Formats: sequence, structure tokens, C-alpha cells
Amino acid sequence: MNKIEHIGIAVKELNASNTLFEKLLGVPHYKKEEVESEGVKTSFFQAGPNKIELLEATNPESPIAKFLEKKGEGIHHIAFDVADIHAEIARLKSEGFILINEIPKKGADNKLVVFLHPKATNGVLIELCQEIRSEV
Amino acid sequence: MNKIEHIGIAVKELNASNTLFEKLLGVPHYKKEEVESEGVKTSFFQAGPNKIELLEATNPESPIAKFLEKKGEGIHHIAFDVADIHAEIARLKSEGFILINEIPKKGADNKLVVFLHPKATNGVLIELCQEIRSEV
Repeated sequence: MNKIEHIGIAVKELNASNTLFEKLLGVPHYKKEEVESEGVKTSFFQAGPNKIELLEATNPESPIAKFLEKKGEGIHHIAFDVADIHAEIARLKSEGFILINEIPKKGADNKLVVFLHPKATNGVLIELCQEIRSEV
Repeated sequence: MNKIEHIGIAVKELNASNTLFEKLLGVPHYKKEEVESEGVKTSFFQAGPNKIELLEATNPESPIAKFLEKKGEGIHHIAFDVADIHAEIARLKSEGFILINEIPKKGADNKLVVFLHPKATNGVLIELCQEIRSEV
């Protein structure tokens, strides 16, 4: 794991939380992006080598809508930057971790992503992400 | 905020979780430390410029014991590295954030730390920490 790529935070209302995190982090968000397949609108803040991703649900079936219903606003996941997502998937599977999706999919901010099941990671939802270097 | 200094994760049993996170992160923990004033035993892992801190409660009054009781194992806080903790405290207070402790105290891993109240930060417990540069 190269670094914490970002922390994902579930929020009820992206615009209000954007204002809040702008004050907290002392910088404006650098992008907003909707990921339709995940049912989320996101915004990103830079904190040195790391990012904060705010996530608002766009429909009631979104994983973020379900998270908010169960737990309320708060930290949703930790994403680690990896150099080779396929090699990391193979390594983690051999160590007994459970992947939510085994085939990396396109996430926000130009990444290939997979998620590990929190049942096998002390209740922490872990994302692995690898920068997409070129669009073929 | 210079970077995410660490993510704090509340766990029931530090030794078992150490083994788990060693497999997850692909590196051994680099230190263990007890912080008596906070009622916690901690261990730290490096992930590039960032760290993962595992926290086990050492008594039932520990904030970690209360967190585990209410929410179970999982992400407890995000800590940001700051260059000047006193300047950041003043800035955040002027923006309306609420500090749990206004005077920085000695935390784990040679840091001065303060916590922001999660009621004013979208349910996220935020720690600010500044490296202690010399012991006077």
C-alpha cells in the first residue's frame, strides 16, 4: 500500500458539507463528480499527498443512502493507493480477505477500484485504488 | 493541513488485529505504545507518508471502550498533521468549530494533539497533531 489515497465521508447534503470541509481544511474542493453506477455525487479536497472525498447518495438504493440510514453521517471508507491492483487482489485473497467485487471497476477521480468486505477487516470498509494511466 | 497523519481504528483485541493489519497492509507494525491518560494501548503501521493506528481500550472508562460499546469495531478518528497546532486551533475556533480540549496534550507517537467535536464536523472525529520537536 503506497499511501492513504483518500478517506470517504458519507454526508447528507453535499453543498452544505462542502462549505464545512472548506473551512475545516482551509482549501476549496478541487472537483465534483457524479458516479452513476454507485449512486453517488462526490467532491474532493486535497490534504498534501492525501484526499478527502465527500459522498452524497443520489438514490435510495445507493450504498451511501443505506450507510446514512444505519449509521448517520461519518467516515465511510479508507482507500489505499496501490501500484498494481491485480497483484494486490491476488495477495489479499491468498491472505483470506474477502473482496466485494473481484474485478476492479471504474470509480471516481480516474481510478480502478475494488472494495474489501469489512467483516474480514475489523469493521473497516477498505478500498484499493489504482490510477488509470491511459484510456485504451 | 499538511496531510492525513493517521487513521485511528478501534479494535477489541490489539494482538489479533495486529496480525490482521499486518496481512492487510503487507508490513509489520513499527511500534506499540500505551497512553495511560487516554486509557488505550496502540500500535502503528506505516503506509507511505501515512499511518494506521490501532486502539484497544485498557479500562471501561476509556473513550475507545465507549466507542466499541456504541458502534463496534471500526474507524474512530482521522488525524491531520499540522505545522503549528496553536495557529490551527485559533483558525478553527474562529470558523466556529468546537474543540474537545483547547489545550494540546501529549498523545501517542510523540505528538501534541487536540480533538474537534464531531457534532460540528459531519459526525467525523478529527484530531490535529503536531510533532513534538524537542523535549524541554
